[in-house]
Amino acid sequence: MSSNTYCVIMAGGIGTRFWPMSRQAKPKQFLDILGTGKSFIRSTFERFAAIVPAENFLVVTNRRYRDLVLEHIPELGPQQVLCEPIGRNTAPCIAYAAYTLRKANPDAEMIVTPADHLILNETDFHAIIRECLEFADRHDALMTVGIKPSRPDTGYGYIQKSNNDVISRVKCFTEKPDLELAQTFVQCGEFFWNAGIFIWKVSSIIEAFCRHLPEHHALFSAIMEDLGTEREEAAIEQVFSECRAISIDYGIMEKADNVYVRCGDFGWSDVGTWGSVYQLSRKDAYANAKSHDGCYTYDTRNSIISLPAGKISVIKGLKDYIVVDTDDVLMICPRSDEQSIKKYIDDVKFDKGDKYI
Amino acid sequence: MSSNTYCVIMAGGIGTRFWPMSRQAKPKQFLDILGTGKSFIRSTFERFAAIVPAENFLVVTNRRYRDLVLEHIPELGPQQVLCEPIGRNTAPCIAYAAYTLRKANPDAEMIVTPADHLILNETDFHAIIRECLEFADRHDALMTVGIKPSRPDTGYGYIQKSNNDVISRVKCFTEKPDLELAQTFVQCGEFFWNAGIFIWKVSSIIEAFCRHLPEHHALFSAIMEDLGTEREEAAIEQVFSECRAISIDYGIMEKADNVYVRCGDFGWSDVGTWGSVYQLSRKDAYANAKSHDGCYTYDTRNSIISLPAGKISVIKGLKDYIVVDTDDVLMICPRSDEQSIKKYIDDVKFDKGDKYI
Repeated sequence: MSSNTYCVIMAGGIGTRFWPMSRQAKPKQFLDILGTGKSFIRSTFERFAAIVPAENFLVVTNRRYRDLVLEHIPELGPQQVLCEPIGRNTAPCIAYAAYTLRKANPDAEMIVTPADHLILNETDFHAIIRECLEFADRHDALMTVGIKPSRPDTGYGYIQKSNNDVISRVKCFTEKPDLELAQTFVQCGEFFWNAGIFIWKVSSIIEAFCRHLPEHHALFSAIMEDLGTEREEAAIEQVFSECRAISIDYGIMEKADNVYVRCGDFGWSDVGTWGSVYQLSRKDAYANAKSHDGCYTYDTRNSIISLPAGKISVIKGLKDYIVVDTDDVLMICPRSDEQSIKKYIDDVKFDKGDKYI
Repeated sequence: MSSNTYCVIMAGGIGTRFWPMSRQAKPKQFLDILGTGKSFIRSTFERFAAIVPAENFLVVTNRRYRDLVLEHIPELGPQQVLCEPIGRNTAPCIAYAAYTLRKANPDAEMIVTPADHLILNETDFHAIIRECLEFADRHDALMTVGIKPSRPDTGYGYIQKSNNDVISRVKCFTEKPDLELAQTFVQCGEFFWNAGIFIWKVSSIIEAFCRHLPEHHALFSAIMEDLGTEREEAAIEQVFSECRAISIDYGIMEKADNVYVRCGDFGWSDVGTWGSVYQLSRKDAYANAKSHDGCYTYDTRNSIISLPAGKISVIKGLKDYIVVDTDDVLMICPRSDEQSIKKYIDDVKFDKGDKYI
């Protein structure tokens, strides 16, 4: 492990798609939705701990999740959790980490990763990350990891590579294409899903901020001397209130000319929907994905049933349903209807405020 | 109120039909399934407290429910709760109360009532009970209350009266007829549902035990001097282990020739099924019966939704369903399927023992 290699885990999301299992007080990254025995953020830490020493991790999260992060990753010291006062999308999040690392170690090389994805084949994944680190070390390159698409998913960003090299320069980014375009992308073979994993030298990404997001560069440069001091919190509060919310993809990756992609196929999923949870879960003889052995089903098929530990359920006559039970909210809805969860949340919030959100 | 008038509440049931809401540890009589704000046993006590002074109540229940009875009816002294060591159907239950009352007051007149029925029109009901008390006081009569049947229910016992007097001698009892017979009964006009409410002098019912259930008479007569002493528990333990389980209907009412019925129509229900709970509940615009205002429904109709206080639910796409959620069991099944609840209980019990029963 190189002492110049750092891992930045982006863990600020307040995902509502898994409501009522995910809640504002405990969003997806802190849950074990797939029943692996570990939360997503814990799995993410362990995955990268094979490559990066524990003291070289930073987690960027919302202020309210600081204690949860330290609870799930007790290997971290409090100074390794960077707290955002407010979510401003990925560019400010990454800037906060990058300018912090530049101050700590100007030779730092950083991996950026979401906190809440699944990777099944960690051996292949580690090999790819190591290749990317080596490449980024030798070049002034902004590296992404591309996933071989298995279906024309319209919810992802697509990366088009420009040649057949293992590590190829990126030709183009396309966010959330329509179905027809996505189908063309999958057939063509040049397009890969954007997994939101980035590898670069800190000097390279700061150079990119300087060129493509000069406002952000100015704001974060100005508070460099406050970072790591007792003035950090107030300075960050100020910067986040002033800086524009923008994604790293839109703000930098789509504009820079030194962007490279390493494509791979290592059992990746962003586990972004109940549909993907269903796909990834073990099913019983009737294709039901059950959280544990206390789910008794009769004439019930192709359904997801998730209950708190110690609770049992008896369910008859549901086909293609999602049943999620928590201590204070029960949700029963067709699997085809999961995009309505946001509406349900709105209705509950209108009546009851934030209590159940 | 006559100091000779007593009310005996039979509260020994371990009803499983409302599982998972009713549990062995807290069966139906201690629940407020209809959301009236009071348990069935509390409502039963209050209903008869208009006629009978509190010190003249006896509750016969299983030993394990003794404290629950005193909690729901704090007006009772501990000696007013008669504890059965084991359920032996209604004849031994009523004998226990009758022989206890004979010792306390040979002139006692007793009303016997189930603990878990609903009566909507209490004014009419009180008038009828008073009539019955008066009649039983003047005659050596075993009185029952008959309910004008509103449908050909095959789950009830039917009482045929022999003439058109307000209080008529009973011609015949018929337990749980088949549908065709039940339809004939309803059309005929001479048949009434047996509500399981009885009124008689203690001397009359003991005379009837002597004649029709001589074994039971012998067993209970033999322990008369133990009743009300510290030897009562052991004596009752012995009697209940020896005496035959038999209902009062089958053991006495169908055989005696001094049985009378007072028919009435006062909004009675035994609230014996989820179907009857649904009928009796307030429904929303889509005919859903909801336990409280935290039940959010979408494209959901004709369903019963019962949640613990403080819990909310979001339910989409259920028609004619029962959703019952408790702290440790969730049940979702079609309303047409409620007779399967016993099977569900068996399956859960087979796996998990009594924990969830």
